[in-house]
Formats: sequence, C-alpha cells, structure tokens
Amino acid sequence: MTPSQALPAVLAKIDAGLEASLARLFEFLKIHSISTDPAYKDQCKAAAEFVARDLSGLGFGTSVRPTAGHPVVVGKSGNGHGHGPRVLFYGHYDVQPVDPLDQWQTPPFAPRIATLPDGRKAIVARGACDDKGQVMTFIEALRAYKAVTGALPLPITMMIEGEEECGSNHLFGFVQENAAELKADLALVCDTSMWDAKTPAITTSLRGLVYEEVRLTCADRDLHSGIFGGAAANPLRVLAQILAALHDKNGRVAIPGFYNGVKELPAAIKADLKRLKLTPKEFLGGVGLKAPAGEKNRMLIEQISTRPTAEINGIVGGYSGEGAKTVIPGKAMAKVSFRLVGKQDPAKVRDAFRAFVRARLPVDAKAGFANFGLAPAIELPFDNPDLVKTRGALSTEWGKKAVTVGEGGSIPIVGDFKRVLGMDTIMVGFALDDDRVHSPNEKYDLTSFHKGTRSWARILAALAG
Amino acid sequence: MTPSQALPAVLAKIDAGLEASLARLFEFLKIHSISTDPAYKDQCKAAAEFVARDLSGLGFGTSVRPTAGHPVVVGKSGNGHGHGPRVLFYGHYDVQPVDPLDQWQTPPFAPRIATLPDGRKAIVARGACDDKGQVMTFIEALRAYKAVTGALPLPITMMIEGEEECGSNHLFGFVQENAAELKADLALVCDTSMWDAKTPAITTSLRGLVYEEVRLTCADRDLHSGIFGGAAANPLRVLAQILAALHDKNGRVAIPGFYNGVKELPAAIKADLKRLKLTPKEFLGGVGLKAPAGEKNRMLIEQISTRPTAEINGIVGGYSGEGAKTVIPGKAMAKVSFRLVGKQDPAKVRDAFRAFVRARLPVDAKAGFANFGLAPAIELPFDNPDLVKTRGALSTEWGKKAVTVGEGGSIPIVGDFKRVLGMDTIMVGFALDDDRVHSPNEKYDLTSFHKGTRSWARILAALAG
Repeated sequence: MTPSQALPAVLAKIDAGLEASLARLFEFLKIHSISTDPAYKDQCKAAAEFVARDLSGLGFGTSVRPTAGHPVVVGKSGNGHGHGPRVLFYGHYDVQPVDPLDQWQTPPFAPRIATLPDGRKAIVARGACDDKGQVMTFIEALRAYKAVTGALPLPITMMIEGEEECGSNHLFGFVQENAAELKADLALVCDTSMWDAKTPAITTSLRGLVYEEVRLTCADRDLHSGIFGGAAANPLRVLAQILAALHDKNGRVAIPGFYNGVKELPAAIKADLKRLKLTPKEFLGGVGLKAPAGEKNRMLIEQISTRPTAEINGIVGGYSGEGAKTVIPGKAMAKVSFRLVGKQDPAKVRDAFRAFVRARLPVDAKAGFANFGLAPAIELPFDNPDLVKTRGALSTEWGKKAVTVGEGGSIPIVGDFKRVLGMDTIMVGFALDDDRVHSPNEKYDLTSFHKGTRSWARILAALAG
Repeated sequence: MTPSQALPAVLAKIDAGLEASLARLFEFLKIHSISTDPAYKDQCKAAAEFVARDLSGLGFGTSVRPTAGHPVVVGKSGNGHGHGPRVLFYGHYDVQPVDPLDQWQTPPFAPRIATLPDGRKAIVARGACDDKGQVMTFIEALRAYKAVTGALPLPITMMIEGEEECGSNHLFGFVQENAAELKADLALVCDTSMWDAKTPAITTSLRGLVYEEVRLTCADRDLHSGIFGGAAANPLRVLAQILAALHDKNGRVAIPGFYNGVKELPAAIKADLKRLKLTPKEFLGGVGLKAPAGEKNRMLIEQISTRPTAEINGIVGGYSGEGAKTVIPGKAMAKVSFRLVGKQDPAKVRDAFRAFVRARLPVDAKAGFANFGLAPAIELPFDNPDLVKTRGALSTEWGKKAVTVGEGGSIPIVGDFKRVLGMDTIMVGFALDDDRVHSPNEKYDLTSFHKGTRSWARILAALAG
C-alpha cells in the first residue's frame, strides 16, 4: 500500500484520534522548557526525552544527543520506508520565557482549550504554537501512517532541537559534525504561518538574523547626578544617541554598507505581493497599532518579509524602580537585532554595526559586544518540484490555493541545511497572526492543529508519490 | 563679654577640648541610625535622644518631636542670648546604609582615627562626615561658648532631623506646621564641602530639580521581531529618538523654553570661578572619566554648579536577560531629571518636557508621565551681609580667602526655608572630595572636625557682631 493509497484511511485515523493527539500535545506543553534561562535546564532535558520516547514508539531509532547547551533529539527511520525522497524534519522543543507572567489569563504551562470570542477553539499555553504544537502536527501525521500501514510513508530523519529560542547556538556545530548522518534529499520545517485562517502558505524565503548585545561603560561606578550631572558622560545618553541614529528619517537603516546584497524584487513577484492587499488594519490592528513604522515608500508586506530591518529588542541601565534615584549610571546595555534578506552577509552586518557604535562613542565611553545570532537569509526557487507537490497537497486540504510567501523571521538552521547539507527546505506551518507567539496567552487554533496534521499526511503522500 | 571678646578663649577651649569632643562624636557615631531601613527605627530614635540630651546640657529647651517617620529634634535657646540675628541651625542625625559591608576595612559603626597614606588623620565611620561629624562641629563650638561665657553667642534654634538620607519626606510638613516656631532671621546648614583641603567654601546656590518618569506604550503586547519587525512601532526606538533629541550637538538642552530664567553669571563671579582652575582630571579622574560631557564652551565648574542640565537616570524596556529574545516590546520607560538654576520654573520645565515628548510621538505611541521631584533652584545674593561676615570669619580661620560656590545637587529643605519661612540659608561645611560619603570607609579629616569647630566659633562671633 503506497502512502497515496493509504491516505484516505490515514486522514480518517487523524480525525478519529484528535482527542488522543491533543492529550499527547498537552503533556508536551506542560514541560517548562524555557531554553534561554539556565534555571530550566532539567525541564529542557525532560522535553527532549518526551520527544525521544514518542519517536521511539513510532519505530524511530532515537537518541538524545548532548551538546554544550540543551540536547538535540535525533530519530532515524532507516531506509526501508517507501521510495520517496529521504526527508529531514526539523523542529524545536524549547519555548520562549513567559514574562510578563501577570498578563497570562491562566498559567502558561497549564494547557487548556479556550473558546475565542468569534467561536474558534484554541489551545492556550506557552509553546502551543511555537513550536510544540506545530511539531506535533507532523508527528501525529506519522503516527496515523504507522497505525494504518505499519510503516512511515518516507525515509525520515527527525531532528528536534532545544535552543531555537535562544539562538540555536550549538545546533550549527551539531549539524556540521553529523553532516553525513543528517543529510537528506529535502528538509521539512513546521515553524511558520498560514497567510490567514483560510489560506495555507509555504514559506519560500526567510530573513536572516544578526543579534547583538552592546554594553556601554562610562564612569567606573554609579554617580550622583547632583554632583556629576552636566559633566560626567552618561552611558544612557550615549546609548540613546547611537540607537536613535540607527534609522534615517525615512526609516532606512543608516549603518554604512547595510544594504549591500539587498536586491529589488522582480516586478512579477512584487505584483503578486501587491495583490495580497495586506492592510495595516489586518496586520497591525490586532495588536493595537495603526500605521506601518518601517521604510517609507515600501508596502507593508515588503517591510515585514522582503526588506531588512534593525530593531531594538531591549535596553536597561540606571534606576528603574519606584520613584526617584538621582543617579548617572556607570553602564548601560542594549540588545539590537537585524533581519537580513537576499545576500546580506551577517558577519559584515555585525561588523558594520559595531563600527557604527564605536564611531559614535565620546571620549569617556567604551563599548563591549556579544553576538547571539548570525544567520544569512535563505530563498527557495519557485520551481522546486517538491515545492510544487507540497503546494498541491496543501491546496487540496484547505480548498484554497496555497500562497508562497517570504517570512520576516529567521530560522537560522535552514541556512545551514542549504550551506552545510546542500538541501533545500520547505517550510509549512499553521500559525496565525493572532497566535501571540512569544507573548502572554500564546495559542494555536484547534483547526491549525487538526488540519495541520491532515496537511502533513497529504504532503507526505504527495512527496512519496 | 560679647562673643567677639570671648572668641580667643573660646578657640583655646576648643583646642584644649579636642579629645573630649572626639569622644562625644564617637558615641554619636556608634549609633546605627540608618533611616531608610525600618529595621533601624529604634537606633534612629536613640540618635535623636543622644542629640536632645546633648543640647539640653547646653541649656537648650529640647524636644524629640514625633513625625510619621523618624523624629525631629528641636532645641530652643530662647531669646536671652546675645543681640545678633536669630539663627536656625539644620542638620541630620541619620546616615546612609552601609552596604557593601565587605568593603569596609573596619566595622562602619566602630569609629576610629586612621592615618591616611599622606599622613592626614581622619575619623572613619559611617556618618563621620555626613552629617554627624559636621553637625558636631557646630555643637562643639556652642559648647565652648557656653563654657567660656556661660551662654550661647546668639539666639539659636536647632533642628536636627532623621530622614535626610531617605528624602526628608516628613520634614517639609513639619516645617510648615511649625513655621512660626522655627522662623528665624537666618538659617545655617553644615552639610556641604570645602573647595579643597586648604580652601574653605560657602555654598551660595543649589540647583533645583525636576524628576520625571515617562512611560511609552505602542503595541498592546510584546511582539515577535521576526513577524512584526519593520512594521510595528517600537517604543524603545521612539524613546531613544526622544532622549537623543534632549540635547543639541553643543550639549545644550533642546527643550523649547528650558533656559527661561537662566542668567549669565556676573563677569566678576565668572572670573572667580575661572581662577579656581577646576580640571577634568581633578573632578572626573577619580571616577574613571576624562572629559566634561556638558555644554560646550562652558567651564567644567559651570557645568556642575551654575548651569542647568538634563540627565537620563534610567531606561528599561524589552528583554534584558541573558542571550537573545527577538521581541519588540509593547512598552518602555525612562527616568529623566533636570537640574535647575536661577529662576527656572520647575512646573514649566516639567510641562515643557512633557510637551517635547508628546510632540515626538509617532501615530502608534502613547506617553504617560509621573513626577518625583519639583524644586526650584535657590540662590543667596552675593551681597548678603551675613554672607560677607561668614566669608570673613572662614577666611581668617583657614588663612585663605573663602570661595563662594554653587552646589550641583539639591538640599530640598533649603528651598523650603526660603519659601515657607522667608529665610536665606548660609551653607558652610568641611567635607572633602575624598570623604567617601555614602560609600564604604566614609571618613572626616581630623582637621575638618577641629578647624570646622573653630570656624563656627568665628562665624558665630562675626554674626553676633
């Protein structure tokens, strides 16, 4: 029985097993696998072991592989499964921190089904969407194949990491060291979004990322602003001036050389994007905003997907408690990140940023830097045959033509799949714009989870085809 | 016998009684009167009672007056003492916390005489200078008069409070409620510094203060910078742009109307300041800085004393933990304070700052404000007759012309003496720049204590005329 022949039974199995699938996802969501905070090291390990156990049950040869950070789960089906392309599936079991905790309506690691005001049902928990819920759509599709056919539909290697939310620092080395073992014909990733709740999407480009921390130091201690105010270099003032200079008055990034490697889109693609008619109200209205704040004279959809950006992700310095403290701090810190497109070189962008900061330091200010992310943008050719098959399968499941889009965020490992393993990646995901990913009350629509699982069943059949 | 006639004997008495004076100061220094920490409430009361007992012994009608915080000691000499101006002396018996305790060479409340590397002798303890040692210079001068003449040299009211180190929160109300009782012809304060170890100084101006907190809000939640980056208003970027605009390229505050009420110094005073030759190395070298960061074309001494300033005291927003979080925060906060001089109106400065911020808000940013300080600058006219007398007395004691200086910080109660009680204040103190006030190993030079006491004896004689 080929995967295509099995597909109707597989879809029926998915439908019938939805409750059990949810129960498994909830167990996964209860694990506090916050990767960026060392306090949750054991919970990250527990999440890895949860995934490994589940994959073992599906017949994968599974191992929890240590790294200098959180472990990587690898599951190998072997080659005796169907005749389609060998696939590497990538996802992550780690989640974002949950602060501000007081804005959660229910505890972030107590998953529940909520009914949204418009009647939609959604799974609410940290990681419900990003990426535990999305990973489980793929695993549940595999489980249905296994139940119906006794085998997986394709030769598959699973690689589920635990540091995506803190920069995937150890995954790059892991992939390089294990290149021969991990190399496949095609990579699949489920960590992206639908176009809207009814329109499936395949992400064919991803912005790259450079994530920098800059620490400024002026005086060797905190100073009294009454005594030293007006004379002592203030690192918060220096920082504000540097950060304010990052963009020019048209919203373009003002770092020299930043746009090297950025090309204008082909006219046809630009026309496609224009036809999607993404409005500020649609995209920004849900988070309380009205106006695109990016480069002037660029469509909103360009600003968020095909244009590079600079964002300040955090600033801290001086006194931030209740009331007044008349202090001139000795130091201040900012986190600044850049989204890259086209052929922008991450290392060159990092170096240009550091030079930009250093060029603006007054006599008494010193800057130190740390890098927490360095990934180029990636792009999938529009005529890739696996992309064509995937698009067909998605369009069938959702009854609406799947669109190809550029994603604003980075999935750095996808760049490595191309460079190190020579593989293209097809990114399909079922997140929605209102999923509050990285924010309090993160959710994943029940429809995303259910039809997402069905979508993977169809995609796997199409690829096996 | 007038105070002037008694002065030689009074000075001799002070010299002969130095050991006994130190013994009394040490008893005072042993009391852990840390006002900001409720754990030391009883010790604060004990310090108040110590002062009250000492003043009673000098013939003051003394009371320890309760407030909602720590008590205020009031001592009244009555009017039968000499014919000079009625004087209100202000000081404080409370001290700063002692942390970090491990940086003290000896316990902070075990006073001792230390020999500094250059041979100077100094009293080492928390409060040795600020303000127990300084207060006792005045009280010891009174004690010598009492011993020599049987009376105080002037009609004097003492007001020694216990909350200076935590904001003097209850003193303002206390002064207002007891205005009739406290009003005098002149206030004296001993809580300031010498110009250097050989040059006495009188503080004739204090900068005022406006302390504002600004909270910016953009999106109604934290956003993923991959998804929203490039399109969503980022409150950290808005904040950086506003704060960077606070100063122009010459270091002047760029808020419209900010300099209203600021006058140029008279040429003679400016020449006096210039002759002091304050160098960046002297003033900034000790905290690891090299270059004055204030208004260009202003002397360093102007920047820190006679010119108004704007300083950023704190910023917080977004992610500031370890590693990376790709967030665009929904909100950001800054604390900004202004030091005022001359006739700058604090309420107008506050309003101008708020208008300045609001004028720079893009469509999607909202600003909220809170005020934590609103005090005008105060200035003593250079031709005030009591100032002239004080200057002469100090110059005689130290053998060097006393300088008049502007203090960069605020002593809020001095503003209230002017506004509520209609009194000018003469601020004389004997602290030195290396006294480590508010820091571990606080000290007060033995010379400051001894010649400080002699200085007050001379000043009191001069004021008594």
